[in-house]
Amino acid sequence: MPAPTSEIIKFKRDGLELSKIQISELIEGYTSGNVTDYQMSAFLMAVFFRGMTKKETFFLTQAMLHSGLVIDLSSLEGKKIDKHSTGGVGDKTSLIIGPIVAAAGIIVPMISGRGLGHTGGTLDKLESIPGFSTQLSVVQFKEQLSRLGLSFIGQTKEICPSDKKMYALRDVTGTVECIPLICASIMSKKLAEDIDGLVLDIKVGSGAFMKTIKEARTLAKALAEIARAANKKVTALITDMNQPLGRTIGNSIEVEECLDILKNRGPKDLRDLSIELSAQMILLGGKAKNIATARNVAEEILTSGKALRLFEEVIVAQGGRLPLPKAQRTYAVVSKKSGFVSSIQTETMGLASLLLGAGRKKTEDTVDPTAGITLHYKIGDAIKKGNAVATLHFNGEKPLKEVEKMILGAIEIRLQKPRTPRLILERVGR
Amino acid sequence: MPAPTSEIIKFKRDGLELSKIQISELIEGYTSGNVTDYQMSAFLMAVFFRGMTKKETFFLTQAMLHSGLVIDLSSLEGKKIDKHSTGGVGDKTSLIIGPIVAAAGIIVPMISGRGLGHTGGTLDKLESIPGFSTQLSVVQFKEQLSRLGLSFIGQTKEICPSDKKMYALRDVTGTVECIPLICASIMSKKLAEDIDGLVLDIKVGSGAFMKTIKEARTLAKALAEIARAANKKVTALITDMNQPLGRTIGNSIEVEECLDILKNRGPKDLRDLSIELSAQMILLGGKAKNIATARNVAEEILTSGKALRLFEEVIVAQGGRLPLPKAQRTYAVVSKKSGFVSSIQTETMGLASLLLGAGRKKTEDTVDPTAGITLHYKIGDAIKKGNAVATLHFNGEKPLKEVEKMILGAIEIRLQKPRTPRLILERVGR
Repeated sequence: MPAPTSEIIKFKRDGLELSKIQISELIEGYTSGNVTDYQMSAFLMAVFFRGMTKKETFFLTQAMLHSGLVIDLSSLEGKKIDKHSTGGVGDKTSLIIGPIVAAAGIIVPMISGRGLGHTGGTLDKLESIPGFSTQLSVVQFKEQLSRLGLSFIGQTKEICPSDKKMYALRDVTGTVECIPLICASIMSKKLAEDIDGLVLDIKVGSGAFMKTIKEARTLAKALAEIARAANKKVTALITDMNQPLGRTIGNSIEVEECLDILKNRGPKDLRDLSIELSAQMILLGGKAKNIATARNVAEEILTSGKALRLFEEVIVAQGGRLPLPKAQRTYAVVSKKSGFVSSIQTETMGLASLLLGAGRKKTEDTVDPTAGITLHYKIGDAIKKGNAVATLHFNGEKPLKEVEKMILGAIEIRLQKPRTPRLILERVGR
Repeated sequence: MPAPTSEIIKFKRDGLELSKIQISELIEGYTSGNVTDYQMSAFLMAVFFRGMTKKETFFLTQAMLHSGLVIDLSSLEGKKIDKHSTGGVGDKTSLIIGPIVAAAGIIVPMISGRGLGHTGGTLDKLESIPGFSTQLSVVQFKEQLSRLGLSFIGQTKEICPSDKKMYALRDVTGTVECIPLICASIMSKKLAEDIDGLVLDIKVGSGAFMKTIKEARTLAKALAEIARAANKKVTALITDMNQPLGRTIGNSIEVEECLDILKNRGPKDLRDLSIELSAQMILLGGKAKNIATARNVAEEILTSGKALRLFEEVIVAQGGRLPLPKAQRTYAVVSKKSGFVSSIQTETMGLASLLLGAGRKKTEDTVDPTAGITLHYKIGDAIKKGNAVATLHFNGEKPLKEVEKMILGAIEIRLQKPRTPRLILERVGR
């Protein structure tokens, strides 16, 4: 007879290590509805206080993974490598990395999420391309992967249903900020993609979930441990999110910026990070014998336009067509000071973009594909009073004065030139 | 605009002290259904880990108290004093104390609960008296208090509805064992009785919820603090529950034992504790100027038969009639050893009685009024192999072999005579 759920809760509450069977019972019960929301939320809060051992976190990940469909890509030849970012403002690398790595001969099965709060989501960005569909069936997804090596889809109902239920519950019960729960949520979905390896982009800074390098390192290590326990190759980069990545925050304007990069234009930070993440994936996928070679492979694919052509093929394959739409109105936010941009409250920039319609406060909100912010200066740049620090893109009536105030308040201008922040801070694992 | 519930949960989770307003919002919301079970269970688990300050515990008690009806006894002349026991096996003192203290001229408004698990409940015991009703209206309750000074009723739906919901939730979410939650649950119901003072009987030992004197002391102090904050007089006794109180465990057999005490017969431990608790109530009620006098008052009322007559009047007033029913079958459990009874696993004795039908595993179970166990020996008594250590009272088919095994396993017999355990261990407060 299985132990009652209350015994499993007490076990965790009292700091004992749960067995694989106890964790499976709990997650299976929750998925099927036999374990109630109120028991799960008490359990999650106990985990918040007691944490989980490596073993427990791995068992939780496995149980969540097996609560739904696990995609089988074994029929496809070649290594399958994906990237996961913990999310930030202006973080659009998937749209550049996917084409580069696929063009290197690696299968990139990208199952992405939507944006929430100050962070954007890959699905919203892609769907700003007119006609682009992320609602492929698993069969269509595999067919496209076999043909192009790259396919973008959204989380389906069949994949990790327990994660969907648990995340919604965590959101309203104060149990989001908990490393083992974050890890199991991320890794269960990634393992469902049937990948051979994973590159993690752990964001740290004012626009990221992790505010300190120490927290980021803890998360990176915990994620890497699960990947290794699941026999997946893994590399984690800890990267800076103390300013938006690139110059755009929104959806169609971010896609435009990615196209710029693929055309050998666009901001250096976005290009550099995309090359580095691509190189790590190419290395994991066995298409280069060391990281220097892998970087060269990525550079060559980008510079030659191969990645651009592959991305254009993916757009066509998924029903999309260029050019991208533009917002009907723009507004220039003008600097009231001269000096150097010394810091940017990045989360505030994300929230300002949300107020223009580019994001969602609640899961059920809709997103304006063309709204957003173009930033004209980055940390370390000199700016003069009267210059446009940012351009707002929007439709209809929007709280422009409020957004302007937020942006001006978020960008600190000082007389002294600051040190240019490092983009890639650390590499963890492999 | 009130703060969302998730913010209140996070506040407690992060170890901050909740305000009176936050606690009221939470409890009002939970009572009305605006706060969900899953949010409340996450909150309760956070309280389990973070505890509550004295202030928070008092605000929680008040909020739970005001979630329902507060009885108004101000029209009745005289002090209103009640007793609360944390529960044990064979704990039947209410039926003796109520009549003694009421006969001393104090109003005793006894609102009691039902038994659950290994512990019995006053309501179940009283309802084993044929015809006895504990379902009085508040008007009938007050009328009887004014006429006899004593009335027994059950918890009504109107009193502390939030406690009922919270207790049911705690039971299945591993949040029962938590001092501030236990205190608020007990005290909200006691404060709803509109009493002037309260005597607490905190049980400690193998048959009690509190297993160590330290835990018992912590609970006693926490309860006394709430009573004082609510301007109620309070005395707490910490008393032994390392063996059943008296010799009977069940319902009608426990009532019979109480009648024995009221007739100046019956076991010494039950008589001594009843006198002491009565004396403490008489002292709080201002009917004696010191505890020695109060003990004399209680002794005189018991010895003279006044308490017996008052109890008989209460039985008649509440529709009951004697004699008590008896079980159809009995079975003697015979000792396989000679020596001295040196310890009794008291909780096991309660569970054995439950298997005979005297208790309930779940709230909705019914109770056999006549079933139970009579213990023929107490700790320190000499016993011979072949003597009946206990008599089982039951009806129909019962797992007699299992019960016999439990009882023999629960009673430790050694060659050396043990020290007789002290009954009243400590007094806390006033």
